Amino acid sequence: MTRISSAKDKPLFTPGPLTTSQTVKQAMLRDLGSCVDEFIAIVRETRDLLLEVAGVSRQDGYEVVLMQGSGTFGVESVIGSAVPPDGKLLVITNGAYGERIAKIASVLKIELVVYRTAENVVPDAAEVDRLLTEDPGITNVAVVHCETTAGIMNPIEAVGHVVRKHRRVYIVDSMSAFGAVPFDLRACEADFLVSSPNKSIEGVPGFSFVICRRSALEATEGWARSLSMDLFGQWRGLEETGRFRYTPATHTILACRQALYELAEEGGVEGRSRRYRENYETLICGMRSMGFREYLDPDLQGYIITSFFYLDHPRFTYDEFYERLEDKGFVIYSGKVSDVDCFRIGSIGRLFKEDVTALLAAIKTTLAEMKIDLAVPATAG
Amino acid sequence: MTRISSAKDKPLFTPGPLTTSQTVKQAMLRDLGSCVDEFIAIVRETRDLLLEVAGVSRQDGYEVVLMQGSGTFGVESVIGSAVPPDGKLLVITNGAYGERIAKIASVLKIELVVYRTAENVVPDAAEVDRLLTEDPGITNVAVVHCETTAGIMNPIEAVGHVVRKHRRVYIVDSMSAFGAVPFDLRACEADFLVSSPNKSIEGVPGFSFVICRRSALEATEGWARSLSMDLFGQWRGLEETGRFRYTPATHTILACRQALYELAEEGGVEGRSRRYRENYETLICGMRSMGFREYLDPDLQGYIITSFFYLDHPRFTYDEFYERLEDKGFVIYSGKVSDVDCFRIGSIGRLFKEDVTALLAAIKTTLAEMKIDLAVPATAG
Repeated sequence: MTRISSAKDKPLFTPGPLTTSQTVKQAMLRDLGSCVDEFIAIVRETRDLLLEVAGVSRQDGYEVVLMQGSGTFGVESVIGSAVPPDGKLLVITNGAYGERIAKIASVLKIELVVYRTAENVVPDAAEVDRLLTEDPGITNVAVVHCETTAGIMNPIEAVGHVVRKHRRVYIVDSMSAFGAVPFDLRACEADFLVSSPNKSIEGVPGFSFVICRRSALEATEGWARSLSMDLFGQWRGLEETGRFRYTPATHTILACRQALYELAEEGGVEGRSRRYRENYETLICGMRSMGFREYLDPDLQGYIITSFFYLDHPRFTYDEFYERLEDKGFVIYSGKVSDVDCFRIGSIGRLFKEDVTALLAAIKTTLAEMKIDLAVPATAG
Repeated sequence: MTRISSAKDKPLFTPGPLTTSQTVKQAMLRDLGSCVDEFIAIVRETRDLLLEVAGVSRQDGYEVVLMQGSGTFGVESVIGSAVPPDGKLLVITNGAYGERIAKIASVLKIELVVYRTAENVVPDAAEVDRLLTEDPGITNVAVVHCETTAGIMNPIEAVGHVVRKHRRVYIVDSMSAFGAVPFDLRACEADFLVSSPNKSIEGVPGFSFVICRRSALEATEGWARSLSMDLFGQWRGLEETGRFRYTPATHTILACRQALYELAEEGGVEGRSRRYRENYETLICGMRSMGFREYLDPDLQGYIITSFFYLDHPRFTYDEFYERLEDKGFVIYSGKVSDVDCFRIGSIGRLFKEDVTALLAAIKTTLAEMKIDLAVPATAG
């Protein structure tokens, strides 16, 4: 496995953009016309590789559409394209990314039902069943796979079975989980799954991608509420000519293809999940030994990103903690959890166990500098 | 001036993505978190440099907003944000990019008036005056600066004076012209000017930018028809925290900053326009000598991209011509002009006179291979 890392930049223990390999970045050292045969072939190959990561194929009735912009643009393209003109969307939310889907629907003037749980509670498939039974007007259901607000893993498969039973269209935002967490796309019954190449694929940001059932995609013709983000239009363009309708981020696509090669080299999603899990386990073990505690119940906690309570110590302030760590060359992330004081540390991207160990050593030094005594462990939030 | 070019890739004589310098691409060999101070400072610097290229400043009441996605996403963000909920848009069009603006408005269900001229005719400011006088319901006027369909330069200043006189909001799509053509943004009275870093700025694709009068931008609060492409929301996010609301194409922004350094090094827009004009003059001189003729009247022809008629010769077919040129390492572009057979050759991007000379030599060889005799010049279209 190629383990070249970008020496001069600080490792990013964040929800993204993430640390990528040097070879992924070097793939961008080319200028290809977006209409030349070579680029068209690269786009086709990238799309095929993404389907492979998802464990599905065109023969099974799946398609993949690349969409310019960030992951949120991809999510908006799906919400704006897959909900019929007179449709109604049920958004299942337990964090900022679920709330964002609801906000997209509201700006797009799409009728909305929200099923909200606390940020440390997973949604209940039985409640989804009840909501769909009660409201036959709901046409689409959207949920976030790994809600990186807290790092919680949502039960996309259990929810999917309920959505399928009711014959509604199922949308999964799998931004950070796709590529990191082995799962069966068919078993989870997703009609549309959105992700981004700059999360666990370990590419760079610049576009998103949507893996979908062809039949569900075909049904959306003419529904899009945007020209640029018309998912069906984008797909038809890619299929008919191999070209994007509008200029793609060519360099970013080159990086994504290289990242997909490196994902395969690592043993695919299984191989990558082992590394991420090892990063996560090293992290929580080390953090606990310093007195930090996780916000989530371990059963709900994914290995993608972990929220830790602030240390309940008079000399602990997050700003100082963050800055001292950044001065030592490590970037962590502030919390997004709404009602408790947390910060987050990601385990994904081109990071290895030794990077996590180095981070832990830096945290230990930082606490010593802040005169937070480890001999008598502080109690956590 | 740094003249490092990307040796292994074919020079792109297209409307974009374009050939960029190796140093611009190398600027992408870094992974920066989008929320770290260094990246926030780079975004601020990039925005300041873009205002400088436009010859305006915050003190003058101008702002610049970066928007994820291609140039079309930037145009859609302006149309979807700057036209009030009950507004009406006048689109002035003489090519595919003007038509695209009309299509965006139509998908967004914005009331629309279209003033259309042929692809080789510039719009008449007096007609715009008449349309605005007759229809006080028109709130916004949009026009394309260099319509790369044929390469025609539209009279954005004359139109701007009329729009200002009628106190309507003026939107200019200056995708390929910005950075290539010296013009006075204040004199042209544009409220919103959209462009992309991967045209004459010579960066790579991945986002677009909008330079706007602050007062016009502030007026749009709450008007956006999209969450991702809410221009006001994006601006407020960048101003309040320095961060993007949603993941930016970090690497692409690093490339843009480097490209802006190289633009300054070349003498800014004036310096760059000299190189592009030289490329153009070398091109048409050489093409004419081989019997090719330009589609546009020289008075209307910009030096950004030139449409040439197919040679009226029994052995000339564009497909063979294109492929033989590509085999020799040169990428040109098919025509977009609707009613005549044309192809296009761009003069922008990291291309120098010697690149154009090499292209001309390859064209000469290609014609010889196609047994199109130069001794008795063919007549054109």
